[in-house]
Amino acid sequence: MSENPQDDKPSTLATDFSVIKAHAGDYLEAVNEYIGEQRKAFEPEIRDLVHYCLEKGGKRIRPVLVYFSGYREGEPDPALVKLGTVIELVHTATLVHDDIIDDASVRHGRDSVMEKYGSSVAVLLGDALFSHALRLAAEFPTVEVCREVAASTRTVCTGEIHQSFRRGDEKMDLASYYRCIEMKTAELFRVACHLGAAIGGYSREFINASGAYGYHLGTAYQIFDDYADIFSTEERMGKTLNTDILKGKFTLPIILLLESLNSTEKEKFLEELNNSEEVPVDTIATLMRTHEIKGKVMDHFNQQIQRGSDVLNPFGDLPATLRLRELLSFVSAQIELLA
Amino acid sequence: MSENPQDDKPSTLATDFSVIKAHAGDYLEAVNEYIGEQRKAFEPEIRDLVHYCLEKGGKRIRPVLVYFSGYREGEPDPALVKLGTVIELVHTATLVHDDIIDDASVRHGRDSVMEKYGSSVAVLLGDALFSHALRLAAEFPTVEVCREVAASTRTVCTGEIHQSFRRGDEKMDLASYYRCIEMKTAELFRVACHLGAAIGGYSREFINASGAYGYHLGTAYQIFDDYADIFSTEERMGKTLNTDILKGKFTLPIILLLESLNSTEKEKFLEELNNSEEVPVDTIATLMRTHEIKGKVMDHFNQQIQRGSDVLNPFGDLPATLRLRELLSFVSAQIELLA
Repeated sequence: MSENPQDDKPSTLATDFSVIKAHAGDYLEAVNEYIGEQRKAFEPEIRDLVHYCLEKGGKRIRPVLVYFSGYREGEPDPALVKLGTVIELVHTATLVHDDIIDDASVRHGRDSVMEKYGSSVAVLLGDALFSHALRLAAEFPTVEVCREVAASTRTVCTGEIHQSFRRGDEKMDLASYYRCIEMKTAELFRVACHLGAAIGGYSREFINASGAYGYHLGTAYQIFDDYADIFSTEERMGKTLNTDILKGKFTLPIILLLESLNSTEKEKFLEELNNSEEVPVDTIATLMRTHEIKGKVMDHFNQQIQRGSDVLNPFGDLPATLRLRELLSFVSAQIELLA
Repeated sequence: MSENPQDDKPSTLATDFSVIKAHAGDYLEAVNEYIGEQRKAFEPEIRDLVHYCLEKGGKRIRPVLVYFSGYREGEPDPALVKLGTVIELVHTATLVHDDIIDDASVRHGRDSVMEKYGSSVAVLLGDALFSHALRLAAEFPTVEVCREVAASTRTVCTGEIHQSFRRGDEKMDLASYYRCIEMKTAELFRVACHLGAAIGGYSREFINASGAYGYHLGTAYQIFDDYADIFSTEERMGKTLNTDILKGKFTLPIILLLESLNSTEKEKFLEELNNSEEVPVDTIATLMRTHEIKGKVMDHFNQQIQRGSDVLNPFGDLPATLRLRELLSFVSAQIELLA
């Protein structure tokens, strides 16, 4: 095997995050450091609050998307570090606000901002994080970054409002589901990849392909999340499951199940769902098995992964393409591990 | 009298809004039309919500600030129409979020978004309005507009968080009060005037003076609001009064009163305030009269008006200066009318 990372075969299946870290490690360290520095950019009154939100992140998959989309050999480009931070700040702001909406007390294994400081502070802190993200976006020499990030955020909020209005709506169909997750999840993935490729200096063709890749990967990512909420175990996921049903969110598995039931079965199931104090997990598990919903959800997931891969085909020899395929393999492997 | 508006004397005291409208009428009509068009820029799912927020505004004083700061004879510059809209959208977004925090059911004489659609929608709609404002800001050729608007919004949120943390804090002093209102109110006035003058093509010296003017006018404006909450009548203001005390907000009149009381009087007053189910309006009225607080608050107000006027002195012959002085007279007259 050559030492040159460009010789890596995309067929090397990345099943755990360490494979991603091998290439994104230095970059993620720089992002974490830069995120840590942002605390100082806030007025003294809220520095501790900002620190609380930012010190414990998740996998920082959105910055990784930025980095891989604009990937070049050598030291991580500081512009990609800044852009990854912008996207992560927007994401963090939406989480702070989502936790108000979902009345969620836990985030990243500890009290959510909303639980610790109350909903008023959570509203305002989310706003402060979001406006700081835009402030950083405005440090790029062209207005494109600001414009794309602001437009994406608006779309993400619209997706969340859409979801909020459709709660408990048993007529939620596939088209509505896709429209909703495209807005609330895929859009920020898309913009991360689009702008990453742009800042990385790639061609307009690749920038568009990278954006499309992000869009499909984000869609797949949300399908995975919805899949795991029903088919995984709490031990494995390290979080409470069945929360979507509990909150009246009709996600892909339930939508596909409802499509598979005849009208009598459907009526009976919805009655049990609406009249149970707790989620009828046994009924759901039985019905999901009988109607082979797991496989059907995986088909939807794999379709998105495939599309994400297809859009990269014309760009097989770019350094960014190799990295993006690696990430695709990683996300793809996650659902296989749960199957 | 000449027909040329440049011949207007700043000494013409503008006591009602019609004097402002005489010069800003066409501009405000263009702003309202442009704001109305923004509805179409949102995804179909939330157009009605956006329309609900935007159709009934207040006086649109922030767009007027933008216009007057960049004022030139002739047709209103479309760039100033866009900038006024950006600032008004940011302001509207903060109102939507403020109503969640204050649990306010009424805004502009009808149900607040929070009352009509619930707090979840209010959180997300505020986010969508704010991100749209930044999206519009990114349509200006330079990043300055985006950068200034984003930074200001962050400061406004910090001010609100600060206020939120200081609720019921009887140790709130003058310095904290000023820091708080400068962040939550004066900053957006400042940025409106700063960017208005910049877009209007004025010199760097005038841009800075205009920003300082906005800052003092905004501070005066908030002092007026806090004054009215205690000294006006509900008939006159068309809204519920004494709400600040009810929410534990220690504003200028109360801070000055507490400073005027000796320790025994102070203890007695705070005890009554903390133990009464309703606001002890009679006690407050008596104490305010005895300690002549009304005049003291007016001194603070007039000091800001004076400073706002002083910073314009070197720019007496600019068209923008005349308009800004007119607005200063208008705001100044409001408190006189209540006295």
